[in-house]
Amino acid sequence: MTELADIEKQDLLYQGKAKEMYTTNDPEILWVHYMDQVTALNGKRKVQMKDKGKTNCAISSQLFTDLRQQGIENHFIKQLGPTDQLVQRVQIIPLETVVRNYASGSFVKRYQVDYLQKFEQPVIEFFYKSDALDDPFLNDDDALALGIATNDQIAEIRKLARQVNQHLIQIFAKMNVQLVDFKLEFGLTKAGDVILADELSPDNCRLVDMKTKESLDKDIFRKGLGEMVPVYEEILQRLQHAEEI
Amino acid sequence: MTELADIEKQDLLYQGKAKEMYTTNDPEILWVHYMDQVTALNGKRKVQMKDKGKTNCAISSQLFTDLRQQGIENHFIKQLGPTDQLVQRVQIIPLETVVRNYASGSFVKRYQVDYLQKFEQPVIEFFYKSDALDDPFLNDDDALALGIATNDQIAEIRKLARQVNQHLIQIFAKMNVQLVDFKLEFGLTKAGDVILADELSPDNCRLVDMKTKESLDKDIFRKGLGEMVPVYEEILQRLQHAEEI
Ligand SMILES: Nc1ncnc2c1ncn2[C@@H]1O[C@H](COP(=O)(O)OP(=O)(O)OP(=O)(O)O)[C@@H](O)[C@H]1O
Ligand SMILES: Nc1ncnc2c1ncn2[C@@H]1O[C@H](COP(=O)(O)OP(=O)(O)OP(=O)(O)O)[C@@H](O)[C@H]1O
Ligand SMILES: [Mg+2]
Ligand SMILES: [Mg+2]
Repeated sequence: MTELADIEKQDLLYQGKAKEMYTTNDPEILWVHYMDQVTALNGKRKVQMKDKGKTNCAISSQLFTDLRQQGIENHFIKQLGPTDQLVQRVQIIPLETVVRNYASGSFVKRYQVDYLQKFEQPVIEFFYKSDALDDPFLNDDDALALGIATNDQIAEIRKLARQVNQHLIQIFAKMNVQLVDFKLEFGLTKAGDVILADELSPDNCRLVDMKTKESLDKDIFRKGLGEMVPVYEEILQRLQHAEEI
Repeated sequence: MTELADIEKQDLLYQGKAKEMYTTNDPEILWVHYMDQVTALNGKRKVQMKDKGKTNCAISSQLFTDLRQQGIENHFIKQLGPTDQLVQRVQIIPLETVVRNYASGSFVKRYQVDYLQKFEQPVIEFFYKSDALDDPFLNDDDALALGIATNDQIAEIRKLARQVNQHLIQIFAKMNVQLVDFKLEFGLTKAGDVILADELSPDNCRLVDMKTKESLDKDIFRKGLGEMVPVYEEILQRLQHAEEI
């Protein structure tokens, strides 16, 4: 393994909607660059926003660090300046794992329940990460039939997702933020272990202020509720403040 | 409990798309009338077809009888003339339980897989039986969150659905028919037990001839493939013939 200090950025591996993934001189390590870009409707709407990349990079680095301290293995290695990270390269399991504590988004739309209705148990949903199919909702049997994951991997993902949820609920509660729902991605290490990957930021979470119930996440952009980056910066500040206590 | 010979049809309880449900002088027993009507697109297309009711009534009576012999408890009590049945009244659990052995219908559409691709394990999917919501697909967590069923009921439904599948695969195989998929409804008895209800007919199953792969079910109507009732009659004849062996 290459010394972390000697890691060099190499080729662009994947140009995503929010991040660029680069290979490095260590085949096990990827270089992530958080872009100043925000998209909605699966990329159909796309806007550049100054300081968005550095804010999400900082939030994500902090949350991955916190989760590791709580024993949740994840791909984060270290932050490299304001907008970049080194992460462990994994084979992403093409399941977007959504954890819901309160009804919002597509759940409200599908089942016509009240926005922010509380669930007695967290609701976990899987979506098949496939641009061609438009990320369809699926169940465990479908995922097995399509060869997306094994039974054991699905069970592990569900277990980890519940643990991540418990920790994130507490982290956000200290910031007076209610964790409505969020999306996780998991990947397989070379050893075959399932670990948490991708990012943890207001791009992938629904967050509302505990008192005002104002959205503090990408819904600001999706619904045109005002300036988004200052709110992301507010989340970062509350997170840093909470860490200091 | 009223003697079966003394059961009288009373009020129309529910006017369905394929059946009329009547109360009787026994509060535990419903009188089902199979109509000569076929619908598609959740009732948006509706056509009258002579002899469809009596064919489905006969097929359904036979299959419920066969399943009972195999130990699968269900609502069927007896057939009453060509188009009518007495059934045990249950509280229908609003989950349409779909069991798939081969890819077809909405599965092919959602995941763009090959029609009739074989699944290694049967795939079970639940849809929320709600006309207002257009019967959306859901998973177990959703069903729990929406209060549609308890964890134990969902587990029982899944167990029974797999058993029904094993028996139906065999029954249809003897008729040279491949059981592609089918939809079940379950209900709660007064004692709180989950039992199989509704109907079992080519309206709710996808069946193809083992050799020719021709559709022998409602897809004939959905896709405008020709005369439907003669094919349903063919299914009934093969079923009666198979019973005789
Ligand atoms: N540790 C990792 N190893 C390999 N790939 C990763 C890792 N973490 C995240 N990825 C993948 O890198 C990409 C991150 O880019 P971005 O989030 O911008 O993608 P995206 O536009 O959301 O597109 P996608 O639909 O592919 O997620 C995603 O495809 C993600 O699955
Ligand atoms: N044993 C039973 N006790 C009570 N209700 C039953 C029983 N078996 C079936 N049902 C219900 O009776 C109705 C049967 O009518 P039909 O199949 O025509 O309905 P449908 O048009 O399919 O409409 P739905 O969307 O309500 O199923 C269904 O609502 C079904 O759930
Ligand atoms: Mg992404
Ligand atoms: Mg029906």
